[in-house]
Amino acid sequence: MITIVLVEPRNSGNLGAVARAMANFGFEKLVLVNPKCNPMSKTAKNRAKWAQDVLKKADVTRDFGYLKRFSTLIATTGKLGTDYNIPRSPITPENLSKIAQKNTAIVFGRENTGLTNEEINLCDFVVTIPASKKYPVMNLSHAVAVVLYELAKNRENISSHIVFAAKKEKQQLMKMLNKALDRMDFATKEKKNTQIKVWKRMIGKSFLTKREAFALMGFLRKIK
Amino acid sequence: MITIVLVEPRNSGNLGAVARAMANFGFEKLVLVNPKCNPMSKTAKNRAKWAQDVLKKADVTRDFGYLKRFSTLIATTGKLGTDYNIPRSPITPENLSKIAQKNTAIVFGRENTGLTNEEINLCDFVVTIPASKKYPVMNLSHAVAVVLYELAKNRENISSHIVFAAKKEKQQLMKMLNKALDRMDFATKEKKNTQIKVWKRMIGKSFLTKREAFALMGFLRKIK
Repeated sequence: MITIVLVEPRNSGNLGAVARAMANFGFEKLVLVNPKCNPMSKTAKNRAKWAQDVLKKADVTRDFGYLKRFSTLIATTGKLGTDYNIPRSPITPENLSKIAQKNTAIVFGRENTGLTNEEINLCDFVVTIPASKKYPVMNLSHAVAVVLYELAKNRENISSHIVFAAKKEKQQLMKMLNKALDRMDFATKEKKNTQIKVWKRMIGKSFLTKREAFALMGFLRKIK
Repeated sequence: MITIVLVEPRNSGNLGAVARAMANFGFEKLVLVNPKCNPMSKTAKNRAKWAQDVLKKADVTRDFGYLKRFSTLIATTGKLGTDYNIPRSPITPENLSKIAQKNTAIVFGRENTGLTNEEINLCDFVVTIPASKKYPVMNLSHAVAVVLYELAKNRENISSHIVFAAKKEKQQLMKMLNKALDRMDFATKEKKNTQIKVWKRMIGKSFLTKREAFALMGFLRKIK
């Protein structure tokens, strides 16, 4: 399981919002290092909504050294260094999602100043969210939400309820289209082929659900 | 440029947080439909931080119909229907980012109840963020942040040289589909309506080019 660490958070609203984002993406373990606000304040609970359990069960520690127990420590930053500032040369959340593993903690810094260079140096590497150069610094809970979204995206228990048409159904659709086109009257073979191309692309581009695919089969079947 | 639309937002803190997330990912155009809170309140401005300009320049309208000016309207929802609930059969933000184009608006619903079925039906298709089944409903500004993060990630794809079918052509297509369906033999009116819904979704989701739209018109014209 991946743990989320907040270092010296100041705003209890943010704490609640982080808890909610964690629950939204199926994460449970929260560690607060030297928090500057009350994680069980009314504001925090209000913002956590149905995720107050994450706040209740959070580990609170005074010492950054507590984090040494994790096999991998990942720092996050919105402030990027130059190419020569190696500690701040980061990977993206997308790449993180490909390599994140068990017993990993992702560390988010203070709302105003982020993580110190010293803290970043204690981590294994740095993740940053690609953002606008004009205004890259995100709200703390937004940054957590985006990173967890990427981590959760490829996890099976998150997988949404959408049932997409399988290859088989798409092939079946194309077969039925072909038959329908044969019953229709095209001046040239080229014009028929254009139809096949357009339908194939449309079916590919439109992320058809199974249900939609079956409805289209019903349509094609009716063409005399 | 892609426009962000909030329908009846109630919480001015959320408004500010949405503005900040927009600036973080380089988006500028915000439309508020019938807002239930003050977008220039102190809370909104505090949360917007360096993105107060987005709030200041937001268009405010009382009427959802205002959104008809966009060529593509994309609804967002955290509440998914079953596979049989076609209007709520969604694509993911990742897939959206592959196909989003100019003059598109992404519509986010109320904090408590989201978008109505009626509002969703006025949109071309639906996007949902894959989230925990236990607690899928995200904070409004978090949902905006995640969707815009995905769109920004593939920013270069957004302004492509492809000529997409305009609203006019899509409407023309739907008109011709309607006529074709009248010539076909459906057991119930409901079955005909399902076809209309499926085609509307498919045309919306597939970001048809002008050329593809004209080819489909040729197809529909041939149905006897």
